[in-house]
Amino acid sequence: MNIRMIAQILGRVLLIMAALLLLPFVTGLVYAENILPFAVTIALTAAVGGALLLLRPRSREIYAREGFAAVGLSWLSMSLLGALPFVLSGDIPNFIDAFFETASGFTTTGASILNNVEGLSRAGLFWRSFTHWIGGMGVLVFLMAVMPMSGERSMHIMRAEVPGPTVGKLVPRAKETARILYLIYTGFTVIETVLLMCGGMSFYEALLHAFATAGTGGFSTRNASIAAFNSVYIETVIGVFLVLFGTNFNLFYLILIGRVREALRSEELHRYLEIIALCTALIVLGTHRLYGVAQSLRHGFFIVMSTISTAGFCTQDYTRWPAWLQTMIVMLMFIGGCAGSTGGGLKLSRVMLLIRTAAADVGRVISPRRVNRVQMDGRRVTAETTGAVYSYTALVMLLLLFCTAVISLDGFDFTTNFTAALSCVSNVGPGLGLVGPSGNFSIFSPLSKLVMAFTMLFGRLEIYAMLILFIPSAWKRR
Amino acid sequence: MNIRMIAQILGRVLLIMAALLLLPFVTGLVYAENILPFAVTIALTAAVGGALLLLRPRSREIYAREGFAAVGLSWLSMSLLGALPFVLSGDIPNFIDAFFETASGFTTTGASILNNVEGLSRAGLFWRSFTHWIGGMGVLVFLMAVMPMSGERSMHIMRAEVPGPTVGKLVPRAKETARILYLIYTGFTVIETVLLMCGGMSFYEALLHAFATAGTGGFSTRNASIAAFNSVYIETVIGVFLVLFGTNFNLFYLILIGRVREALRSEELHRYLEIIALCTALIVLGTHRLYGVAQSLRHGFFIVMSTISTAGFCTQDYTRWPAWLQTMIVMLMFIGGCAGSTGGGLKLSRVMLLIRTAAADVGRVISPRRVNRVQMDGRRVTAETTGAVYSYTALVMLLLLFCTAVISLDGFDFTTNFTAALSCVSNVGPGLGLVGPSGNFSIFSPLSKLVMAFTMLFGRLEIYAMLILFIPSAWKRR
Repeated sequence: MNIRMIAQILGRVLLIMAALLLLPFVTGLVYAENILPFAVTIALTAAVGGALLLLRPRSREIYAREGFAAVGLSWLSMSLLGALPFVLSGDIPNFIDAFFETASGFTTTGASILNNVEGLSRAGLFWRSFTHWIGGMGVLVFLMAVMPMSGERSMHIMRAEVPGPTVGKLVPRAKETARILYLIYTGFTVIETVLLMCGGMSFYEALLHAFATAGTGGFSTRNASIAAFNSVYIETVIGVFLVLFGTNFNLFYLILIGRVREALRSEELHRYLEIIALCTALIVLGTHRLYGVAQSLRHGFFIVMSTISTAGFCTQDYTRWPAWLQTMIVMLMFIGGCAGSTGGGLKLSRVMLLIRTAAADVGRVISPRRVNRVQMDGRRVTAETTGAVYSYTALVMLLLLFCTAVISLDGFDFTTNFTAALSCVSNVGPGLGLVGPSGNFSIFSPLSKLVMAFTMLFGRLEIYAMLILFIPSAWKRR
Repeated sequence: MNIRMIAQILGRVLLIMAALLLLPFVTGLVYAENILPFAVTIALTAAVGGALLLLRPRSREIYAREGFAAVGLSWLSMSLLGALPFVLSGDIPNFIDAFFETASGFTTTGASILNNVEGLSRAGLFWRSFTHWIGGMGVLVFLMAVMPMSGERSMHIMRAEVPGPTVGKLVPRAKETARILYLIYTGFTVIETVLLMCGGMSFYEALLHAFATAGTGGFSTRNASIAAFNSVYIETVIGVFLVLFGTNFNLFYLILIGRVREALRSEELHRYLEIIALCTALIVLGTHRLYGVAQSLRHGFFIVMSTISTAGFCTQDYTRWPAWLQTMIVMLMFIGGCAGSTGGGLKLSRVMLLIRTAAADVGRVISPRRVNRVQMDGRRVTAETTGAVYSYTALVMLLLLFCTAVISLDGFDFTTNFTAALSCVSNVGPGLGLVGPSGNFSIFSPLSKLVMAFTMLFGRLEIYAMLILFIPSAWKRR
């Protein structure tokens, strides 16, 4: 393991984070709040980052494992250091709680241990939502966008941070890809902020909700989440932008360069829109007696988007809906958004590959002589990719069971434990039972919160980048 | 598809079933009950079986898909015809209920829709428990033991009916293997019957509980299940025999022919015994304040064996235990017994392969140049086998989600729905929530019961043999 090179990357990440922390710092200045917590954190983060850069690497070579380790360590450090302002300002006095909240922010989970969001300082609330925006597209992708780095090296990092079964390079140079991704991401965020302001939100609230939508995170500025605004317009804007942020960003790039037809042919996009339409219709079917057709359509679309994009914003307490709709919501939590989007979960294309591979395997068992090939978008999928989908899914299931087991020590019911764990693995936010839309994660013990924070990081970074930190043999010199 | 050859196999299976039905018929005679329901069923089953044999096959060739289809159709026909005596006698007047109970019997699930088991006729109760014994080792393996058939042909059938990631031929000829398996199976059943009689059970009750133990089914003759006897001796006998019936039968064969050391080296056996010891210890840890150490050891061992062997006998309502123990029980339900045992679930060796393959895949991602081989019992496991383990697990998860979704239409809570579905997939019997040890499956709608009965059949036959019945393309002529 080239530890000095990892230190170089981590150092740069922390310097970027120190720079990003200037925004909540300025927010504190504007609202005349105590800015000391952010000042201290910025100084500390910059100092650690700068110190790491002093470790000159002997070789600049990095391989897959250095890429994973750099990404895993960066996210862990960001979550630990990012928790400091909450602790220092007294917004979240307990460090484990603050770490949970920050990890939940960066991983765009949106699970909260706060009972009173509205009691936070303006700067703290800004930072909380801003972590969603930073984590959504990934800070290392940002690093690539602004720093010079060779293509081969960057791809190892990109593979570790960008979710999905395969990583598509938009253009030959990873740096360009990263820039394009951030341009689209920022553009959408700006447009959504403006549209939310048109719906009557203040600039502050509009920006924070746009951050949370962009990262498909789900933190709100209100205790009642989006329901507090009680506005069809705002729900529609957020719902539509969740559709966009849950879509593979490669498609937007294709549309930008005029290859619209190619983008619209994406099988994953078709299934994504079909699932959204179908599940919304099912919610209308199941709740129209409760709300009337128009209102159930409104709530149905929003909850479907909030769940499949793994944002986890709330407008309605779906734990009071019929049981089969709750099961449907749990399944959407498993699936998550499209590959290459800011959404979490297994990712739709991975679920599609899983089903197609399983179907091909069934065919092979039943008719051993026939050749069954797995295809996606008209191209043959390699055995390596389908194998990786299987093993990734197996790892997610093991993580889900492990997290469920640990948090069940707290003595809550199985539904709460299982869906809380699933919510963390898939980076959704709410679950069923006690962690439903009207509950939160403050009920859990410190141990559970710690394990859940790590589970979110494992889920966001798709296991490997975090797992490598716990495999001693990976750290040995070759 | 060689349909005439499938008809030949199915015909023979039904003739065997007609012969086996003579036992409950005789039981009815002995207890001077109405024997008409069994007489009618025997006549009908024999007639259908005989008629099928009249279809002379043009070719005696069978391939994997004929093997699967024959096994799937046999089990479905047996469950449908086997339900008749319950309906005709009025023991279970509703056909769907009777089909559920019979499928639950043959698949050795042991989930029941009966609120009052003790109200059944003696012959009906006998038949109900006897289905466990027939289903445990498999009626087609029995067919092979008594009928002349070529090795290649029989292996296709054996592969479809005997659970586990790989099918080990004990001896070159499948017929001999089948005979040996049934000899061990019958021998253990006889010994257990005698031991249970020594504990004060009548011959009738001892035999029926031995049937249910042998098949790791879990039907009892009492409403309170094994708790009704309140006997440490009886619980110990059943518990120890569950350990045996949950073990790979190949090991008993090895011991029989003197290769004891080889048998005792089995990695699956070691993990199996370790899990039993560990989980029993954990239950003692979690419940000793409730029962005292001695009693919690008694209940712990029994419930662990009842769950991991997927029998599902009850002595204690574990839904009143701490939540983390319930999570542990759910995990044991996933795992199930050893491959080549009468237990259900994923099978322990498959779970071991799953974890080892995932670990090897992690190694490959982190260090692409290193070669990571999956091993079991010192032998290298082929990529074909590990691939099959992955796809089987994926199919089980899809089945689990599908079953959960359908039964959630009935409106019960997520814990009930999920664990009821898991219990059916893994052929356990009870779950958590409303289907816990003190509940039963009578609460569900006819649709749910039907889907659950099929889920049990899919689970017992490890998906493929049932799935092929629903794939139209598999039935086309080549």
